[in-house]
Amino acid sequence: MTLSVAIVGVGLVGSEFVKQTLPLVKSHVIRIVGLSTSKKSLFAASGLDVVEADWKTALSSSVIAASPESLLGNLGKLVDDGEKTVLIDNTSSDDIAALYPRFLRAGISIITPNKKAYSSSLSLYYDILSASTKTGARILNEATVGAGLPIISTLRDLVATGDNVRKIEGVLSGTLSYIFNEFSTVQGTGPSFSSVVKIAREKGYTEPHPGDDLNGADVARKLTILSRLIPSLKDKLAEGYKSVSTTSLVPKELEGLSGDDFVSRLAGFDSHFEELRASAKKENKVLRYVGVINAETNEIKASLEKYPADHPFATSLGGSDNIIAFHTERYGARPLIVQGAGAGAAVTAMGVLSDTLRLLD
Amino acid sequence: MTLSVAIVGVGLVGSEFVKQTLPLVKSHVIRIVGLSTSKKSLFAASGLDVVEADWKTALSSSVIAASPESLLGNLGKLVDDGEKTVLIDNTSSDDIAALYPRFLRAGISIITPNKKAYSSSLSLYYDILSASTKTGARILNEATVGAGLPIISTLRDLVATGDNVRKIEGVLSGTLSYIFNEFSTVQGTGPSFSSVVKIAREKGYTEPHPGDDLNGADVARKLTILSRLIPSLKDKLAEGYKSVSTTSLVPKELEGLSGDDFVSRLAGFDSHFEELRASAKKENKVLRYVGVINAETNEIKASLEKYPADHPFATSLGGSDNIIAFHTERYGARPLIVQGAGAGAAVTAMGVLSDTLRLLD
Ligand SMILES: NC(=O)c1ccc[n+]([C@@H]2O[C@H](COP(=O)([O-])OP(=O)(O)OC[C@H]3O[C@@H](n4cnc5c(N)ncnc54)[C@H](OP(=O)(O)O)[C@@H]3O)[C@@H](O)[C@H]2O)c1
Ligand SMILES: NC(=O)c1ccc[n+]([C@@H]2O[C@H](COP(=O)([O-])OP(=O)(O)OC[C@H]3O[C@@H](n4cnc5c(N)ncnc54)[C@H](OP(=O)(O)O)[C@@H]3O)[C@@H](O)[C@H]2O)c1
Repeated sequence: MTLSVAIVGVGLVGSEFVKQTLPLVKSHVIRIVGLSTSKKSLFAASGLDVVEADWKTALSSSVIAASPESLLGNLGKLVDDGEKTVLIDNTSSDDIAALYPRFLRAGISIITPNKKAYSSSLSLYYDILSASTKTGARILNEATVGAGLPIISTLRDLVATGDNVRKIEGVLSGTLSYIFNEFSTVQGTGPSFSSVVKIAREKGYTEPHPGDDLNGADVARKLTILSRLIPSLKDKLAEGYKSVSTTSLVPKELEGLSGDDFVSRLAGFDSHFEELRASAKKENKVLRYVGVINAETNEIKASLEKYPADHPFATSLGGSDNIIAFHTERYGARPLIVQGAGAGAAVTAMGVLSDTLRLLD
Repeated sequence: MTLSVAIVGVGLVGSEFVKQTLPLVKSHVIRIVGLSTSKKSLFAASGLDVVEADWKTALSSSVIAASPESLLGNLGKLVDDGEKTVLIDNTSSDDIAALYPRFLRAGISIITPNKKAYSSSLSLYYDILSASTKTGARILNEATVGAGLPIISTLRDLVATGDNVRKIEGVLSGTLSYIFNEFSTVQGTGPSFSSVVKIAREKGYTEPHPGDDLNGADVARKLTILSRLIPSLKDKLAEGYKSVSTTSLVPKELEGLSGDDFVSRLAGFDSHFEELRASAKKENKVLRYVGVINAETNEIKASLEKYPADHPFATSLGGSDNIIAFHTERYGARPLIVQGAGAGAAVTAMGVLSDTLRLLD
């Protein structure tokens, strides 16, 4: 059976997703019925020509305004006609996330790398869960944490088979991984914090405003998504990521500045970060910005921590790698570890496409 | 819908599997319809009482001989009645593996940690694949490599989404991991090879005959299973694990000895292993017994290799950890890595149960 797929959001991840699906469109595994940005849209129940035609030009020159309402109606008709139908949300929009329950109730499955729905209020989360149990439409979000790395599926398997998850600890932001891998090495010396942030921004590793990475919110969102999969913690974070204990690395004095101003004034705080680095070095440790979910103490935090020089977070990380360690009863003293690039369009789209193919299993 | 499950083989993994399914039997997600060892069996289409009753005693005192033929007939009837039916093969039997095509053709799905079917001749492998496409019955074998670690599913996802797998490299035997983690540390000194093997055997980490681990066949089998998932290599190993280039660590002179004799005479070869350790140390390297699949050179080998002291195989392994690195086009210079216990009844049964639950997705 061919899967009917509508893609909302065709930026970095969305465009790469279309590219990766082309062989599957050719072999009739997938049919792309819809494409939209925040402004424009295209829809054809029988499938758009994304293989031969230039879909980007067609979309940007479309005269049909984007409308989630009409997309819901169109996809709902496909479901009524017995088609397996899925919405791929490749935006970071709260508005689209808020509509998930309605899509699910219409029998439309959802696949997304968008963290918003699962990391916001508990009520939206429960609304989504109950909407999907009603119609059997599924919602999968592997790419929201660690991009293409098998993190959410691994946690789900641990929980579903009855393992007791004690602690999850990881470097969950590719940007903060890069920054601290460069800033804090086992040698304990190196470039200033602000210069590392500046280079990371120039390389396109940070958000346009680096404060959006340094404030820890992205890590807090990922922790929310993971925590809600652990039975004993699932109701703990009522306000989602806002309920996570989060250490922001944005100096109070620089809050509210533009990205450019922020970067140019960050050097004024280099001595603070230099002190942190030196104090870690004194204990033969390095600094890493991590997320920790401790299911035994109920502590969920995004924070800057020190790790011994021979710890995997110190020895085996590089680039903008993510790493995540699952400490469970069955795995005992030695955790299950997953590591690799946790950002980038290609690996993120891969995570989205893997989820999509699960619907065909 | 409740899944009807027949379990063949209730040794270490099989018993633990029954234990892990109990909550799912109670909640009617799973019904255990069959249990068998090599000698005895129990079957009830409506489900055996494994929750309240002592199934081990019932099975060992059963008067019904084990018969794969009658199990096939009984499960086939369930399929005809519209039940989702699965055979869990928790044996290491070639005979049971040879029957997979017939079970699959009858519409019975198969889940197994048994490496035999997927690592033997290419003809059996293709017979299995074609049998399963005919009826839609599925066969999943995550636990054959790395036990509960997400290795096969990760490789499948990489391939299915069109990533180009260049190289897979890993420590795939828990036993050989333990032996070389103990024998070859970055310090380059330590206990003799034979004493490490002796202790590993005493702790129950090796097969009754340690030669069955040291000959590398188990690693070769795992490499066969993985290679066959890579499009360019899928037809390469005609004779399965026997076609893999494998370095045996069993000295020629000790072939054919009993396990006890083998262990007591192994000390006579300590100087050979000591030389290897010293020569690695000279290059600031450690010894690890690894499996390597190089999809660019078409080389597939199980062998003893040297790794630099700062390589993850040297720094982050411990206990009987497995570690596997996927080098792919999308992951670029930094591989996707999965690490953790790759043996043990609890994590292996978990891998089998995760696969089983996938049938209900
Ligand atoms: N890039 C990564 O490495 C990565 C990694 C993990 C997860 N993610 C997640 O993947 C998602 C996409 O990331 P990206 O890097 O592809 O972002 P992006 O390049 O900024 O693209 C976002 C796309 O969404 C569209 N969009 C925004 N609001 C919309 C709305 N209300 N309705 C319809 N379309 C809307 C945008 O359209 P306009 O062009 O009209 O604004 C654009 O096409 C985000 O949730 C992100 O957090 C990304
Ligand atoms: N243990 C681990 O850590 C681990 C890890 C990964 C994979 N695995 C795989 O998991 C499988 C089971 O391992 P295990 O450690 O549980 O082995 P085990 O303790 O030796 O148990 C094997 C079971 O299979 C039964 N059996 C053997 N041949 C049979 C036949 N022809 N018909 C019916 N039953 C038969 C045995 O019955 P009898 O008692 O009557 O002989 C026994 O109940 C093996 O394929 C192994 O390679 C194990």
